[in-house]
Amino acid sequence: METNRVKVEIITIGDEILIGQIVDTNSAWMATELNKSGFELVQITSIHDEAVHIVDSLNLALKRADVVLFTGGIGPTNDDITKQTLADYFGTRLIFNENVLENINRLFSTRPGFVMNDLTRAQAMVPENCTVIQNEVGTAPVTWFEKDGKVIVSMPGVPYEMKHAMSTEIIQRLQLKFSTPVILHKTVQVFGYPESTLALKIADWENELPDFMRLAYLPNSGIVKLRLSGVADDSLTLEFSMNQQLDKLSQLLGSAIVAKEDIPMEQLIGNLLIASGKMVATAESCTGGNIAHSFTSIAGSSQFFKGSLVAYSNELKINLLQVSSDDLEKQGAVSQAVVEQMAQGVRKLLKSDVSIATSGIAGPSGGTTEKPVGTVWIAVCSEDTMISREFHFGSLRDQNILRATQASLLLLKEIL
Amino acid sequence: METNRVKVEIITIGDEILIGQIVDTNSAWMATELNKSGFELVQITSIHDEAVHIVDSLNLALKRADVVLFTGGIGPTNDDITKQTLADYFGTRLIFNENVLENINRLFSTRPGFVMNDLTRAQAMVPENCTVIQNEVGTAPVTWFEKDGKVIVSMPGVPYEMKHAMSTEIIQRLQLKFSTPVILHKTVQVFGYPESTLALKIADWENELPDFMRLAYLPNSGIVKLRLSGVADDSLTLEFSMNQQLDKLSQLLGSAIVAKEDIPMEQLIGNLLIASGKMVATAESCTGGNIAHSFTSIAGSSQFFKGSLVAYSNELKINLLQVSSDDLEKQGAVSQAVVEQMAQGVRKLLKSDVSIATSGIAGPSGGTTEKPVGTVWIAVCSEDTMISREFHFGSLRDQNILRATQASLLLLKEIL
Repeated sequence: METNRVKVEIITIGDEILIGQIVDTNSAWMATELNKSGFELVQITSIHDEAVHIVDSLNLALKRADVVLFTGGIGPTNDDITKQTLADYFGTRLIFNENVLENINRLFSTRPGFVMNDLTRAQAMVPENCTVIQNEVGTAPVTWFEKDGKVIVSMPGVPYEMKHAMSTEIIQRLQLKFSTPVILHKTVQVFGYPESTLALKIADWENELPDFMRLAYLPNSGIVKLRLSGVADDSLTLEFSMNQQLDKLSQLLGSAIVAKEDIPMEQLIGNLLIASGKMVATAESCTGGNIAHSFTSIAGSSQFFKGSLVAYSNELKINLLQVSSDDLEKQGAVSQAVVEQMAQGVRKLLKSDVSIATSGIAGPSGGTTEKPVGTVWIAVCSEDTMISREFHFGSLRDQNILRATQASLLLLKEIL
Repeated sequence: METNRVKVEIITIGDEILIGQIVDTNSAWMATELNKSGFELVQITSIHDEAVHIVDSLNLALKRADVVLFTGGIGPTNDDITKQTLADYFGTRLIFNENVLENINRLFSTRPGFVMNDLTRAQAMVPENCTVIQNEVGTAPVTWFEKDGKVIVSMPGVPYEMKHAMSTEIIQRLQLKFSTPVILHKTVQVFGYPESTLALKIADWENELPDFMRLAYLPNSGIVKLRLSGVADDSLTLEFSMNQQLDKLSQLLGSAIVAKEDIPMEQLIGNLLIASGKMVATAESCTGGNIAHSFTSIAGSSQFFKGSLVAYSNELKINLLQVSSDDLEKQGAVSQAVVEQMAQGVRKLLKSDVSIATSGIAGPSGGTTEKPVGTVWIAVCSEDTMISREFHFGSLRDQNILRATQASLLLLKEIL
């Protein structure tokens, strides 16, 4: 599994991640792209803007990896010292690069209100011995260094600037520089098994996997994703033998496999809806629009998603969704009767084929002894079928919204 | 700024982060909590489940830090080797711990379908020389080691298990073990300045900050957050002198400061709404429920958020929001006329005081020469005021939804 792959490390620079002000989504994105392209990411390191620590991390990374990718620490402000630190590291100086200045001028000409100043002009100073890769969507240039056959790249930490540089330039240049083997990942999503029960059930299968394949368990809100990874020189042969293994796995797990791709559940449901020519609508109380947001985060969702009514108040449930005020009063908003009426109501109001409704106590307050925080009723229905179910999630609001969204999608899957 | 603080490193173990299958939200959460509690996080390292690499990382971390926190790699499955690796590292063996087994039995008794098996039972084997901290919400125990005055903790990677252990046990134990200085962060959010222009405008102020304070720039979708950090032994004096600095900053920046706290924009808007006794509703086309989701992610949002109609199709815009079909046909759904009618329509339909409406082309397809992907019309209105504006964001769907949401909130702020 570990043979011959070009090893990469990511070093992110800046306080933002270390004080928790931002989540490091850059590294996850880079990791995905690097893996798809056959590189092996061996470590991600996040450090402060501090010269000694930058140099130490670079030295250590170069012992393990062939490629070191820096993100961040190259903005125009005082706290950004990466460029100068790398110039010192490579024993060179910063020189003025006219192309970078031209690029900045071009960018600023399209942005009213942005005027050139000394800090921005200083972005055009680059280490003398590096290859400068123009940053087409930002002012800080990407710099590429080579040393003893290894590559060191410094790029911006702004996500879309980093992504643009990676997808249009860096991955291709790295593939040219190194000959990269084929790596494939295949994921199946399993519902209804705790991780350890699943592991025992497929232990024999897992133990007989060939050396060039590896299995990982990724539990996530009621679903366990099984990811099979394989490395080889030839992609067709690898694909064939991985598919053979997955066929065996399918026979073992049957309908517990709810998806054979690593796609979000909302994408899977969307595909099923499109295939059956049905449109879905949602009436959301406790999920507060998150199911709608999940569906609409998918490109082309207008093909299967009709719309949503986010209805927190009883008034809206009664007036727009035709929920019985009597049921609301006697059984409460978080009840089977109400959530079923919400599902029927939104299906009619938005003229959809199927629908989802949620009503629950997301927390942190609003819980009672009978209905503690985390209690959620979910209903899905079509013209002639209704399924409703009560769930008990935990005490954390974010988690409850997320798990209720996931559970709603899985419940809708039952009706399709 | 760097005086006397107890230094902490996080090491995350597992393939998930390194192949990009999950985003490392754990570390961001831990970073926030550690900072609030006066610890300094000096590095986050993500590595594979590989014994040599775990030991190397631990040795390096112990050179820089007083505390090393491991997350992940202690599940029941074969790929999880952290426990054995730490036992080897500390020259000890795994022994059976009855309390852990009892805890697992207790957990399983509340979860129908979960039955004890050998893999789960093996979770009760722990290194002989460590302090075992019960994991009240999961099966893998937390283990606490001490060596030469330093602390090493291994905890689960499952987010809510990690968070539970950190908030109920680990932070307190660390504060007891080390005497931690006071650290304060104060953030102001500035709208309308590019980062470099802002940096020049406040350069004199920044240069005159006392030694124990430090400023960081955190640009984020049209807003620059300025975070002032200070370290001292006495919290009252520190608070006072940081507030003095922020008063000076306020005089420099005036109304460009849109918030004096590090709260999400939706929370800020929520506070303004509550203060003015107004309810908001949204009619969302291109944002697809994300504004509603932002509002409802805030606890207590029912005090200011009335509801939302997510209306992708023209049919819903006409039937429920009273948008003129003539305007839809002649000017298109992404137009000033339509978005203004949507805002008025949803305000009446959901009986709110103010409203937001969005209509745009989120992409990746659907763009034209006149209205390229990223074109978004946003309107906000009250009974007697209407503000509408056209925006041009980028080509990425996720980014467009996010930026349209952010812009909507800022536009609503203008009307409040």
